[in-house]
Amino acid sequence: MSPALLHLYNASQATVVIIDVLRATSTIATALYNGARYIVPVDSVAKCIELGRQINCITAGERDGKIAEGLSYGNSPFEYNREFINGKILVLTTTNGTRLLHMALDKGAREIVTGSFANLDAVTEYLIRQKNNVILACAAWKDRINIEDTLFAGAVIDRVRGHFNMECDASHIAVNLYHKAAGDLFGFMKENNASHYNRLMGFGLEKDIRYCLEPNQANVLPIYENGKLKIY
Amino acid sequence: MSPALLHLYNASQATVVIIDVLRATSTIATALYNGARYIVPVDSVAKCIELGRQINCITAGERDGKIAEGLSYGNSPFEYNREFINGKILVLTTTNGTRLLHMALDKGAREIVTGSFANLDAVTEYLIRQKNNVILACAAWKDRINIEDTLFAGAVIDRVRGHFNMECDASHIAVNLYHKAAGDLFGFMKENNASHYNRLMGFGLEKDIRYCLEPNQANVLPIYENGKLKIY
Repeated sequence: MSPALLHLYNASQATVVIIDVLRATSTIATALYNGARYIVPVDSVAKCIELGRQINCITAGERDGKIAEGLSYGNSPFEYNREFINGKILVLTTTNGTRLLHMALDKGAREIVTGSFANLDAVTEYLIRQKNNVILACAAWKDRINIEDTLFAGAVIDRVRGHFNMECDASHIAVNLYHKAAGDLFGFMKENNASHYNRLMGFGLEKDIRYCLEPNQANVLPIYENGKLKIY
Repeated sequence: MSPALLHLYNASQATVVIIDVLRATSTIATALYNGARYIVPVDSVAKCIELGRQINCITAGERDGKIAEGLSYGNSPFEYNREFINGKILVLTTTNGTRLLHMALDKGAREIVTGSFANLDAVTEYLIRQKNNVILACAAWKDRINIEDTLFAGAVIDRVRGHFNMECDASHIAVNLYHKAAGDLFGFMKENNASHYNRLMGFGLEKDIRYCLEPNQANVLPIYENGKLKIY
């Protein structure tokens, strides 16, 4: 439920799903679904700018709801339609998600993929097929547990639980939360005053929130290898 | 939801509720309710034995479901009936809870109290009366989130939420979990294969689990001061 808890789990040789529903992993799925060649996740604006100078790519990232200075595009999945992103390389700053991905790498994960409602079925089908130990790793917000990443973890568990043993109480908490919310995820976020709901609504991004809670809008599986997220 | 997340919250001058439902804080409430003079929580068997030599007291603690070597009593609330504990001092080893309590002290908490279903109303009435910032601090199990501590946090939030603003998503997750479970807490623990449910059932302690999930069986407020938990 938080990167600060990842060390409690044995990630060695596991499949780790990086979850950052609002909006990094939703945007990653969307850009790849719409034909991006690959995506390079970086943890700072400076690294994004640097890579932008080295390779022919789209640089993207936001700070406080605006495109970060020195970058060209934002974090919204709606920016990455096929007309725009097809065939291009996207370098995306995502602080919480990228840090978590590197933590999972350091702990010896066998595979790292990214998950969001946008690619829910692709993730669950992959996990069932792989038959490997799985860690659903919520990016959270500066280590603070958030509702939407927990809901997505719950949605995955709901669909794969017949194929796995659940080894921790947090998984049971996530799937119960998801069952309570499943009928209306957006309404649940609103009612429960979710911190990112408030933050993004404050930037006028209701459309983004609604999209990021909608299953299977961009049903591909981004796999991380050698610094790149790509569909294989 | 875990001591590993406490640093994310501003505990300075806050009221911190230490929660270790199975079974430390349930046993603490019960012993004080039944007349214990005060309780000294310690984080190791060695310290418990040492204090037992220095003062006239009951030393208690378990390892792997048995009374720890060198100590005289266990962690079950049923051991601390009035006939036995009235007027006595109890020194209790509780690893997760004591460590968390010291973390809260180090972070400058104004008051530290202990909470469990056994003293649910005493805790909630106190929080409403104090009108201070509150951190509900789950002891968890070696930093792993557990269901029962989260449920108790949810039960408190359910009762006090009209008097407070909720500042984090974890609070909303806890109260939703509680609402899902409230009709049958024991059944919820069982259905969800809660880790401590399994552990204690393995030791034949169903009676303890049932007691620890029953509200207001020992409705007093243990307050921590100068190393002692006491009713004021």
